[in-house]
Amino acid sequence: MSAPEVCTEDLPGRTEIEAAAQRLAGQAVRTPLLEDRLLNDRLSGRLLVKAEPLQRTGSFKFRGAYNAIASLQEADRARGVVAFSSGNHAQAVAAAARLFGIDATIVMPADAPAVKIARTRAHGARVVTYDRVAEDREAIANTIQRDSGASLIRPYDDPAVIAGQGTIGLEMVDQMGEAGLSAPPDTLVICCSGGGLSSGIALAVETAWPDTAIVVVEPAGYDAMGRSIVAGEPVRLTPPGPTLCDALTVPFAGGRPWQVARRRFTRGVAITDDQALDAVSEAARSFKLVVEPGGAAAIAAVLAGLIPIEGRTVIAVASGGNVDPAIHAQAMMRPVAEP
Amino acid sequence: MSAPEVCTEDLPGRTEIEAAAQRLAGQAVRTPLLEDRLLNDRLSGRLLVKAEPLQRTGSFKFRGAYNAIASLQEADRARGVVAFSSGNHAQAVAAAARLFGIDATIVMPADAPAVKIARTRAHGARVVTYDRVAEDREAIANTIQRDSGASLIRPYDDPAVIAGQGTIGLEMVDQMGEAGLSAPPDTLVICCSGGGLSSGIALAVETAWPDTAIVVVEPAGYDAMGRSIVAGEPVRLTPPGPTLCDALTVPFAGGRPWQVARRRFTRGVAITDDQALDAVSEAARSFKLVVEPGGAAAIAAVLAGLIPIEGRTVIAVASGGNVDPAIHAQAMMRPVAEP
Repeated sequence: MSAPEVCTEDLPGRTEIEAAAQRLAGQAVRTPLLEDRLLNDRLSGRLLVKAEPLQRTGSFKFRGAYNAIASLQEADRARGVVAFSSGNHAQAVAAAARLFGIDATIVMPADAPAVKIARTRAHGARVVTYDRVAEDREAIANTIQRDSGASLIRPYDDPAVIAGQGTIGLEMVDQMGEAGLSAPPDTLVICCSGGGLSSGIALAVETAWPDTAIVVVEPAGYDAMGRSIVAGEPVRLTPPGPTLCDALTVPFAGGRPWQVARRRFTRGVAITDDQALDAVSEAARSFKLVVEPGGAAAIAAVLAGLIPIEGRTVIAVASGGNVDPAIHAQAMMRPVAEP
Repeated sequence: MSAPEVCTEDLPGRTEIEAAAQRLAGQAVRTPLLEDRLLNDRLSGRLLVKAEPLQRTGSFKFRGAYNAIASLQEADRARGVVAFSSGNHAQAVAAAARLFGIDATIVMPADAPAVKIARTRAHGARVVTYDRVAEDREAIANTIQRDSGASLIRPYDDPAVIAGQGTIGLEMVDQMGEAGLSAPPDTLVICCSGGGLSSGIALAVETAWPDTAIVVVEPAGYDAMGRSIVAGEPVRLTPPGPTLCDALTVPFAGGRPWQVARRRFTRGVAITDDQALDAVSEAARSFKLVVEPGGAAAIAAVLAGLIPIEGRTVIAVASGGNVDPAIHAQAMMRPVAEP
């Protein structure tokens, strides 16, 4: 495990996150903060779920992508954008670019799920496929960027992207108040891949909830952020093989996210595919939400007992819902305790 | 087919619906109005879905139940409430009663789904079961009401219940504005059983959207409201047998709802179980919503081509998400066009 380079560039502050919220108003869904009383009874605590599967394009990624494109200088934006992603970031950049009426080129692995490639194309993006083993997606994206003058929209290590994801935190603070919950939550549980989502939310809630524990959740074997927190420095893992949590497979902590994590994240926990599937099922039963396995990671950590909840208030962020229908059906058929 | 008695008592007005919204603030979820750009492309129109599966207890029924209980005189409320229902109204009344700290007795058929009985009990209600063939649930509820002094919370033919459901209409008018849609929708599509939901919404949007067509959707064979509109008078049907849309099996138009329907509803359409299952699947894929077959009826009518949408803006109300997990899994495995 070698440490990736540590970014020392600036992070978005409260002002940038509030500006992102202004830009996203009327474009992004203000997703609800959901709660199920019967599940709370079973957990002997209070679990609130931020429902980002309901976000435009089915994941939180739209927030960061839209804010990043909106933040470009107009002349730069007119030359279009390029991104690399096998999934949710691809659709988010494609959809946001369409709203601005600009070209988007998305570099996707040739073996990405056909439906994700098709949906990215359907949003009007040009999709360039590459061989995941033989080719380097960043190099391809860089070439496109240089040839076309298009701006690269990074998936997580970008202040505008982090600020966009941070708008979730601003909404949650408001929504807790609207629900009559004046005390900050004890714990905030957030799934983590590169760390754009968790770092953005952590920055957004820092003033309102300074004492709230922030726990990140990763698939076992991809738990680079959790291990980095333990090590006190960023570590890079060798991916162990496939996981159902295909949205959470970045094997190192992103540069800027790590700058937030090192001082603000309490710890990381790792979950199994089975725990993710149990959470997909529970999210459908108790919250009526379709969540993809990676998107259900935070809920999974709570249900699996990895996050103390008895007598506490815990917010879990459900980050996306772009799940293969067959996998969702498989999750729904798993045996569970009812109600 | 004989006509049920026509109710001539008063209906809630704008004032009562706004008062209901005040009572529900902080108690009910302000459910989002969702849209999927790719589905719109496929439909060549604009489909917005009001997401009531995300409502507390998983259906819109919580709104009416809570408002009805909140509207009782305090001394009456203290004596508790009673209701009869095999499903969503049962859980809604039980959950609302718990919030007020009062007793609830729910009369449910002995053959109701075990999970629905269990969930109603889990909300703290006393459940009295009866034989659907040999016994009369209204008579049982009336006896409990007389013995205990509990107030009967009717499922749809009650001004306070209709006002509660009407709050959905107020929210939709606001949400269309927030989404930058200044023109009223061309069509509002709402599922219908007794008619509390559709009549409440129709009353709520009457001033803002006077020219919007209101189409109600019922399961084939249970389409009493649609046939009543054609006949110009309420008709009662003989239920043809089971339907997957178990939430929509009232075989006649409710008294007060009919008073709204006769002057405000444009027409009714009937859907099949297969069309409902296709809509359950599409709601999961495009909106990330778990919807029960009856709750997906309005979406089903649009997808099946029964509601013109090309070049138009249509709102479909998704009314509930309390679906048997195996049925949901079955829906997800159906072949569909992607994306």
